[in-house]
Amino acid sequence: MALVTLTTDFGTADGYVGAIKGVILTLAPGTVVVDVAHDVPRHDVAHAAWVLATSAWMFPLGTIHLCVVDPGVGGARNEIVVAARGHLFVGPDNGVFALVGDPCEGAWAITSAAFHRPQPSPTFHGRDVFAPAAAALARGLPPHLAGPATCSTVSARDTGVIVHVDAYGNLISDLRGAAQVRIAGRVLDVKRTYEDVAPGELVAYVGSAGTIEIAVREGSAASVLGLARGARVEPS
Amino acid sequence: MALVTLTTDFGTADGYVGAIKGVILTLAPGTVVVDVAHDVPRHDVAHAAWVLATSAWMFPLGTIHLCVVDPGVGGARNEIVVAARGHLFVGPDNGVFALVGDPCEGAWAITSAAFHRPQPSPTFHGRDVFAPAAAALARGLPPHLAGPATCSTVSARDTGVIVHVDAYGNLISDLRGAAQVRIAGRVLDVKRTYEDVAPGELVAYVGSAGTIEIAVREGSAASVLGLARGARVEPS
Amino acid sequence: MALVTLTTDFGTADGYVGAIKGVILTLAPGTVVVDVAHDVPRHDVAHAAWVLATSAWMFPLGTIHLCVVDPGVGGARNEIVVAARGHLFVGPDNGVFALVGDPCEGAWAITSAAFHRPQPSPTFHGRDVFAPAAAALARGLPPHLAGPATCSTVSARDTGVIVHVDAYGNLISDLRGAAQVRIAGRVLDVKRTYEDVAPGELVAYVGSAGTIEIAVREGSAASVLGLARGARVEPS
Repeated sequence: MALVTLTTDFGTADGYVGAIKGVILTLAPGTVVVDVAHDVPRHDVAHAAWVLATSAWMFPLGTIHLCVVDPGVGGARNEIVVAARGHLFVGPDNGVFALVGDPCEGAWAITSAAFHRPQPSPTFHGRDVFAPAAAALARGLPPHLAGPATCSTVSARDTGVIVHVDAYGNLISDLRGAAQVRIAGRVLDVKRTYEDVAPGELVAYVGSAGTIEIAVREGSAASVLGLARGARVEPS
Repeated sequence: MALVTLTTDFGTADGYVGAIKGVILTLAPGTVVVDVAHDVPRHDVAHAAWVLATSAWMFPLGTIHLCVVDPGVGGARNEIVVAARGHLFVGPDNGVFALVGDPCEGAWAITSAAFHRPQPSPTFHGRDVFAPAAAALARGLPPHLAGPATCSTVSARDTGVIVHVDAYGNLISDLRGAAQVRIAGRVLDVKRTYEDVAPGELVAYVGSAGTIEIAVREGSAASVLGLARGARVEPS
Repeated sequence: MALVTLTTDFGTADGYVGAIKGVILTLAPGTVVVDVAHDVPRHDVAHAAWVLATSAWMFPLGTIHLCVVDPGVGGARNEIVVAARGHLFVGPDNGVFALVGDPCEGAWAITSAAFHRPQPSPTFHGRDVFAPAAAALARGLPPHLAGPATCSTVSARDTGVIVHVDAYGNLISDLRGAAQVRIAGRVLDVKRTYEDVAPGELVAYVGSAGTIEIAVREGSAASVLGLARGARVEPS
């Protein structure tokens, strides 16, 4: 029984998510469709890339991950299938899979003529291009491939930058090891967990992605420090 | 294996969606329950009708669509099952299925005594009336019907009105063909997709529902133009 | 086929919910994972307890309910499995299961060494501790138990307090019977349903949880009255 996960910026007020699920369940009956996240901030490709990088690997080998955060839909960007570490990723080639593989095992452009609905909407490739491709993969069919494509990858770096701000307002960095960090003019010891400080206080710790995070216990570090993705954080 | 989709205005902070799922899975074990949308704006029947009209047909024939946007719960409105184009729709007879069939193939009122929980709550028919009816349909049982009911339908029209505003702020009209449209005093050429204009600019195009939409690339046309559902749009 | 429900305050913008689903589907393939609510207000244990109390019992006997609203993660609070009325509840022992059983049939602390991922993250027990425990239960394995624990319970009381404010702004009390109630200086007759008053008016009625609720028809009683959880309501 194939598994297809869904990550989008569609929200849950419209019929877009339902349309994608319907196409998959029609073309690949019995597929188990799993919602990962539909409230990715609109058009925020980097946010979606982090969501995938911190959740996809938890699923069974062979899982198909459909990601539609696609501000360039209908334009010049390619459609892509990426194979990485035993998982398959389907979506636009706009950087959304940048954190998936390092290096990618393989990446192919999908041909327009492959599994598309006839006359695909130029504004809804999720329904008309990517869902049919995911359904084909779910049935064990290879998508009809145009040939190898370039899959942009990002190395595991240690550059000292906030790479993700989650819905709690936690600031997640790409720093892997430090006993102390400096951020927004403050120096914080790296603790074990939230309870090592009082409610309302700032705390740094090694987060669930394995990198250093800065939080406010039961509050929002993003609000308290006035910081967003891209802010600097340095070992101290 | 029966499919039941869920469309509600319950949000995802409370136990209401869970209660409906629990009832269906208890009464019809093995049913696949699929979330379509739970953040329909509160009490917005027309919004829910559009969500159904743009997603239901993507599901396999025989799918049961449960829709609970029901400001008149416990009052005079009927409970209804609608059969249209090989799909079944269960919910209140308040117009939420208006866009489903044209004409409806059939529509029946559900009797109060049919599959209800004993002493159904007058404020939660989703749990006590519609979920049991959907579960009965999922098991292949016909709901115990009171007799034919009137299913309000809306013809495919070309009246020049915004019929839906999605969560991106895109303005979706009921106009099917035009090379140019006039809206809020502006004249827009109908383009192919978002990338035909620069970020931040207004664009008209034929949307994924087959009708003309007005968007701001990577922005909100509803905010920029200050328009809502019901606004006029004219071929120009 | 085991059922696992999910109730969290993770929201649906990040990878946290996906990570939990991935772990369960990897460790217990074929499990049916059902979203109950992911927009519980952040860190609001009492809100989550109400969500569980009003939805869990609708699911089939044997359902496993995973609840991760866990402000004390990594700190002194215990991990717990609660058995109550034929259902199993997995999560932190912080009061989130307070409304589940009265009395609890049983409650056990989970040992740290049982089904955890190696070196569980001190900030994401949902993924590393509770999801593996739920998966073990889904496979019919008992979690490796440290011994009996105390499960805090709350009696069915009649104290006259708002115990939950739902996303509609309805004020849900713990009062079970009254013909008239007094709240915020107003006296309201207990009616049958919303339609017994005009849109915009206050109405009291016996809600779907069996207790008295105060609503504004097609509006928010919480906003109109300026009240929150904990407010007093008295039989009059």
